[in-house]
Amino acid sequence: MYSLTVRDHFMIAHSFQGSIFGPAQNLHGATYVVDVTFKREVLDDDGLVVDIGMASEAVKRLLGALNYRNLDEEKEFLNKNTTTEFLAKEIFDRILAAINQGDLGPNASRLSSIQVLLKESHIAWASYEGKV
Amino acid sequence: MYSLTVRDHFMIAHSFQGSIFGPAQNLHGATYVVDVTFKREVLDDDGLVVDIGMASEAVKRLLGALNYRNLDEEKEFLNKNTTTEFLAKEIFDRILAAINQGDLGPNASRLSSIQVLLKESHIAWASYEGKV
Amino acid sequence: MYSLTVRDHFMIAHSFQGSIFGPAQNLHGATYVVDVTFKREVLDDDGLVVDIGMASEAVKRLLGALNYRNLDEEKEFLNKNTTTEFLAKEIFDRILAAINQGDLGPNASRLSSIQVLLKESHIAWASYEGKV
Amino acid sequence: MYSLTVRDHFMIAHSFQGSIFGPAQNLHGATYVVDVTFKREVLDDDGLVVDIGMASEAVKRLLGALNYRNLDEEKEFLNKNTTTEFLAKEIFDRILAAINQGDLGPNASRLSSIQVLLKESHIAWASYEGKV
Amino acid sequence: MYSLTVRDHFMIAHSFQGSIFGPAQNLHGATYVVDVTFKREVLDDDGLVVDIGMASEAVKRLLGALNYRNLDEEKEFLNKNTTTEFLAKEIFDRILAAINQGDLGPNASRLSSIQVLLKESHIAWASYEGKV
Amino acid sequence: MYSLTVRDHFMIAHSFQGSIFGPAQNLHGATYVVDVTFKREVLDDDGLVVDIGMASEAVKRLLGALNYRNLDEEKEFLNKNTTTEFLAKEIFDRILAAINQGDLGPNASRLSSIQVLLKESHIAWASYEGKV
Repeated sequence: MYSLTVRDHFMIAHSFQGSIFGPAQNLHGATYVVDVTFKREVLDDDGLVVDIGMASEAVKRLLGALNYRNLDEEKEFLNKNTTTEFLAKEIFDRILAAINQGDLGPNASRLSSIQVLLKESHIAWASYEGKV
Repeated sequence: MYSLTVRDHFMIAHSFQGSIFGPAQNLHGATYVVDVTFKREVLDDDGLVVDIGMASEAVKRLLGALNYRNLDEEKEFLNKNTTTEFLAKEIFDRILAAINQGDLGPNASRLSSIQVLLKESHIAWASYEGKV
Repeated sequence: MYSLTVRDHFMIAHSFQGSIFGPAQNLHGATYVVDVTFKREVLDDDGLVVDIGMASEAVKRLLGALNYRNLDEEKEFLNKNTTTEFLAKEIFDRILAAINQGDLGPNASRLSSIQVLLKESHIAWASYEGKV
Repeated sequence: MYSLTVRDHFMIAHSFQGSIFGPAQNLHGATYVVDVTFKREVLDDDGLVVDIGMASEAVKRLLGALNYRNLDEEKEFLNKNTTTEFLAKEIFDRILAAINQGDLGPNASRLSSIQVLLKESHIAWASYEGKV
Repeated sequence: MYSLTVRDHFMIAHSFQGSIFGPAQNLHGATYVVDVTFKREVLDDDGLVVDIGMASEAVKRLLGALNYRNLDEEKEFLNKNTTTEFLAKEIFDRILAAINQGDLGPNASRLSSIQVLLKESHIAWASYEGKV
Repeated sequence: MYSLTVRDHFMIAHSFQGSIFGPAQNLHGATYVVDVTFKREVLDDDGLVVDIGMASEAVKRLLGALNYRNLDEEKEFLNKNTTTEFLAKEIFDRILAAINQGDLGPNASRLSSIQVLLKESHIAWASYEGKV
């Protein structure tokens, strides 16, 4: 199995609902350093998992739609706790949609799975991995 | 599959038995930076893999029981080579016991697997992963 | 010259005022990974720059006063742009006050300077260094 | 499942063929920081995944055969795009051959799989994982 | 003293002349991860060391002029050993010229010094620091 | 001012004397990742701060003399607390002696200063910097 990973980041404000979150129930924020890993059984004819240029641009564009936002005010996250693991899945879904639209090139449809990992600090991170 | 990782560390002395270990047969020591990754198929109702507060405290407490020790003098490691890979499994077992005692909350029993990774330097690390 | 550094972090929401900040004028947030470096010409009688336990606890307490806050609503930052470089100086000032109160032990008064470095992402960081 | 990882690096020149590579069609180069992960179900009698000394030396020797080379002039890569993912597989194959020759000791034949990960920068990396 | 750092990278081929360089006399290459640190005594009216957007773009543009090149074929480096320390100074000079042209905004002229640090691997890096 | 840094590591056991050290009064150990930075005003005729090959070998040899040791049993550290900051100075002294013996080549005598930084974990490090 082959993989290719690209790293980018975004910075948001949010708050959590539920006593389990303690002081994180306050409006606060985070920098998420995002590692998107594309996996595939066989390389394409150019010797690639995916076109790294198209993949990097797509990831930057998708993260850009979240960057510099207060997630508490975004409709799509209404009544959701935008935890690190939740956001990993959300970004996974958006990358999958981008692949299906052809944004990562025609060969991206042959990817077998994608992992999205979000680092929220030097001591905590979360990920979601799913099939393409 | 979702994952959540927390990082902590501990510092111990030990020595190894067997000529394969060369100079590491001398009493020496190591800082182990420990990444504990909790994996789960579905998030809980709070949108979490596991309560990160409870998980971090449990990991800190378990590593605290090893921290600032000479492992050669600990009964439980008698006649064992406390290699990095051995210690990864040892810490995995202790986390599993903590989960079974309820130390990581009731939802932790729905975890599917745990990986414990120990970095012994900038150029070497080892891990153990097993089912919950 | 000797130095000792301890690392910790805090997570806040804020926004900036002024067109130079572009989309960062929106309410957003950041994780700041903070490296506090204590510098000193001569070690104390225990062979230390500063008591690392007291230093780590003081830094954790000072960052805790900012952690999980919306800085736009904190009186002390009224009409201030809480940029990374501004916050580095702010934390420097608070550490200096803690030293003067004796929170880092009596030997800390012999420190020559302190640097506070805040990493806001894997590609950007800022610092302030001043005399004790 | 246990794993053990060792890190090393090599520095090469190369160019790519195909318009998809854009400016990387020019002769340029890269530092590849290489993480080789050995995986195994059960530790050997010494409590090891693999002899880390033998593994490190084998990896250093294999990378040394590529280090300080222009890959465009190496016969074995004729008409190949030596992309990061391609090189990960190439190094995997060479490590597998070294194991089969006994270079990592007799116990290395009980490894279940190996992953070779090449970091080409702080924002991009690729890997290949296969069975032993 | 305040500082602000931005990170970027470039990938080049080159070779060195002189027996002291051993196998690095061959045509090979490197990824250089570049940290540019801007230093200043007093923040500007926006609470900044320098406009991070303008600084990041200028650094990307300057590194882009070297990226994907064989430095042995660039006229400006004729008969020069483009060592890591040499390149750090070269990039410093280009940033200084960009500041003098106004590319980093009018406030950048009040910077006191700049450090350019190039990481060539996980175990080696070099820098140049000079006044503005 | 130019600098060149090389990274290596060593692993030791030790204990500290004095109640300020708390549980670190027990025999324990550490991995120290060591960054040695050589500084110089002007490059030599090869475009170098120092011969990186000779510097790396000298650092490896000097750290090798400490590696896999129990520092409590080394005569030279009798009645000393081998804290991270103390060891940084000790290694500095040994590098200086190596330079004076010519181990880093004839040009190394033109270095202006050296910094030795020891990372004991992902959250703590110490350094010593002195003139050559």
